[in-house]
Amino acid sequence: MRETLSYREKELLRTAPFQGVKELREEIAAYLYRNRGMQVSPDCILIGAGTEYLYGRLLELLPKDGVYAAEDPGYRKITRLYEGNGVPFRYVPVDGEGICVDALLASGASVAHVSPGYHFPMGFVMPVGRRQALLSWAKAEPDRYIIEDDYDCELRYFGKPAPAIQSMDCNHRVIYLNTFSKTLTPSLRISYMVLPEKLMDRYVQKMNYYSNTVSSFEQYALASFLKQGFFERHINRMRKYYREYRNRIVQYIKEASLPVTEIKGQDAGTRLLVKVDTTLTDTQIKWAAKEAGLKVECLSEFCHEKRPEYDSTIILNYADLSEEVLKEAILRLAHIFA
Amino acid sequence: MRETLSYREKELLRTAPFQGVKELREEIAAYLYRNRGMQVSPDCILIGAGTEYLYGRLLELLPKDGVYAAEDPGYRKITRLYEGNGVPFRYVPVDGEGICVDALLASGASVAHVSPGYHFPMGFVMPVGRRQALLSWAKAEPDRYIIEDDYDCELRYFGKPAPAIQSMDCNHRVIYLNTFSKTLTPSLRISYMVLPEKLMDRYVQKMNYYSNTVSSFEQYALASFLKQGFFERHINRMRKYYREYRNRIVQYIKEASLPVTEIKGQDAGTRLLVKVDTTLTDTQIKWAAKEAGLKVECLSEFCHEKRPEYDSTIILNYADLSEEVLKEAILRLAHIFA
Repeated sequence: MRETLSYREKELLRTAPFQGVKELREEIAAYLYRNRGMQVSPDCILIGAGTEYLYGRLLELLPKDGVYAAEDPGYRKITRLYEGNGVPFRYVPVDGEGICVDALLASGASVAHVSPGYHFPMGFVMPVGRRQALLSWAKAEPDRYIIEDDYDCELRYFGKPAPAIQSMDCNHRVIYLNTFSKTLTPSLRISYMVLPEKLMDRYVQKMNYYSNTVSSFEQYALASFLKQGFFERHINRMRKYYREYRNRIVQYIKEASLPVTEIKGQDAGTRLLVKVDTTLTDTQIKWAAKEAGLKVECLSEFCHEKRPEYDSTIILNYADLSEEVLKEAILRLAHIFA
Repeated sequence: MRETLSYREKELLRTAPFQGVKELREEIAAYLYRNRGMQVSPDCILIGAGTEYLYGRLLELLPKDGVYAAEDPGYRKITRLYEGNGVPFRYVPVDGEGICVDALLASGASVAHVSPGYHFPMGFVMPVGRRQALLSWAKAEPDRYIIEDDYDCELRYFGKPAPAIQSMDCNHRVIYLNTFSKTLTPSLRISYMVLPEKLMDRYVQKMNYYSNTVSSFEQYALASFLKQGFFERHINRMRKYYREYRNRIVQYIKEASLPVTEIKGQDAGTRLLVKVDTTLTDTQIKWAAKEAGLKVECLSEFCHEKRPEYDSTIILNYADLSEEVLKEAILRLAHIFA
C-alpha cells in the first residue's frame, strides 16, 4: 500500500518538522514582508496550535529570571498564563498611545507584552514615537524583550497599517506573534511566532524535541492558500465588510436613544468602546443588561487598577453577531439608560 | 454569506469547546469502553494537539509540589519535558515487569509515569500483579498519581490486550493518555487525556481559558471515522500487517549471520530488541553502523543508570522502513559483527 503513494502524498503523512512545514513558513515570511514590513527568515518562524501554545514555549525559552509586564488595561488571558506557569509579572499602565515606558522601567519588568497594531481592548494603534521609546527600553539591558502580539492588526480601516515593531528592531529584542484563527476561522488552530535569531538558535538547541502541534496537511493547505493570494484577498474583503458593518453599527448607536458621550475603537478591529453618561455603576450596567438578556462587557473589567475615566464604557464586539441581533441589542441597551 | 451556511457548516467554523468537540469525546469514550475496558464520561476527556501538549497542561494541573518518577530505561522525552518545565523528577528502575514499586516508594516521587500496555523501549506488557502494586502505592497517599501512557497499546500480537490500569483504579488516581498520531499518521496531531473527575473539575475551574488546540473540523472528521468503525478496522489491518512483517523481519535476522543471543519485543509494538554477542561496546556498534550508513539505537541509550545486561542490545524500529531497506540494513549490520 505504502509503495503506491506519490511523493506528495507521503509528504502529507509525514511528521511535520518541529518548527512547522517549510512551505508554510516561507509563505508566512513573504506575507510579513508584503504586509508588515518585516524581513524574516523562514528559519526564524515557529508554527503552533494557537498563540497560547506558542506562549508556553516562549516562557520556557526566555531567561528564567524574567519578570513580565502586562498591559493595564489589557488582555486578561496573558496574566492567567503567567499565573498558571508560575511566572512573575507586573501590571503596567497604558495611556492613549500604549504602554507607559516610564512605568515599565519603574516596574523592573524585563519582558513587555504589547499589542501595538491594535490595542486590546482599547482599539488604538501605537504611534511611532512610543514604539521607538519601547525599543530603546529593550536595548538598554541585555535580557530585555518585547513580545509583539499582532492579533487583529489586519483590520485597520483608516490609512496605511503601521509596520510591526519587529521591523524597526535592530537589536533582536522583538518576538512577533500572530494567528490565523482570528482572520480565517476560530475553528482553525494555526498561529506563528517569529523569534530573533539568537532565541531561535536556543530553541533549536534546547527545545527541538517538542513535536510540531499542527497537523501537516493543514499547514500545506494554508501555505497554498497564502501562495495563491487568497488570504490577502480574504483580508481585503473582510476589511471592506467590517468597515461597512461598523459604519452601520455606529449609525444604529447614534440613532438609538443611548446617552453616548464617545465612541472609540472605530479605526481598527471589531470592537467599539461606547462611553455612556449614566449614574449606574459598571456592575449595575452588567446586571441590567443581563436582565435584558444581554451579555455585556465593560472596559473596567479589563483594568487591574480602577481608573474613573474608563468607567461607564461598554465594549461592543461585533465580529460574531448578525446585524439583526446587534440592532436588537442596541435597542435593549438604550432601554437600560432610559 | 454567513446567512447561507447550514447549521453543520457553522459548527465547523466555530471555536471548539476547550475540552474538544463533544462528538469526538463521545466516540473516544465508546472506543475506550470497547477496547480498553474503561468506563469514562466524555466530560472527563481532554483533546489536545499531541501528548506533549497535554502533558504540559497536566504538569500545570497536578499539585505543584509533586515529584515525578520516570521509568529507567524509558521514554527520554519525558525527562526533557520535566527539565524544560522545571519539575523535579527521579529515575526509577524498570525490571522485566515494569517500574519497581519498592524503588518508586523509596524515591519519594508522588507521580509515576508508566507505559504498562507497551513499555518503551523494552516492549513488554506489565502483568496484573505489578499493576495492582502500583495502584496500592498510589492509594497510600492523598496526592499520588499514575500517568498511564498507553502509546502503542493497540499493536499487541499475542493474546487479549490487558485492560488499561485506569480501568482497575477505584481511587481516581490514574490519568490516561493516548494519541492518534501513532495509529493513524504522525502528520495528524490529535491526542487525548482522561482525567479523574476531581482533576477535571479543577481543570474546568482553573484552566478552561486555554483554547482547544485541535482544529474542530479535524475533530469532527475523526469522530466520524471512529463512529463508523473505520478506526478499529484500520487497527486490525495494521495489527495483521505488522504481525506478518515482524515475522519476516525476525526470519531475516535469523538468516543473516548476526551473532544474535535473544530477540525481545516480539509481542507488541513495532520495535525489536536484538541482543548480540560481541566484544564491541555500544558506542563502537553505533560508530560502525554509522560508517555502514545505518542509524542505530542501542537500549543503553535509554538507560539513565548503566546496566550490563542491557548492553549490546540493538533496537530495530520497523514501523517506518520498507522491507527492502530493512533487509539491506540487517545484512550491513551482520557485516559489522563478522
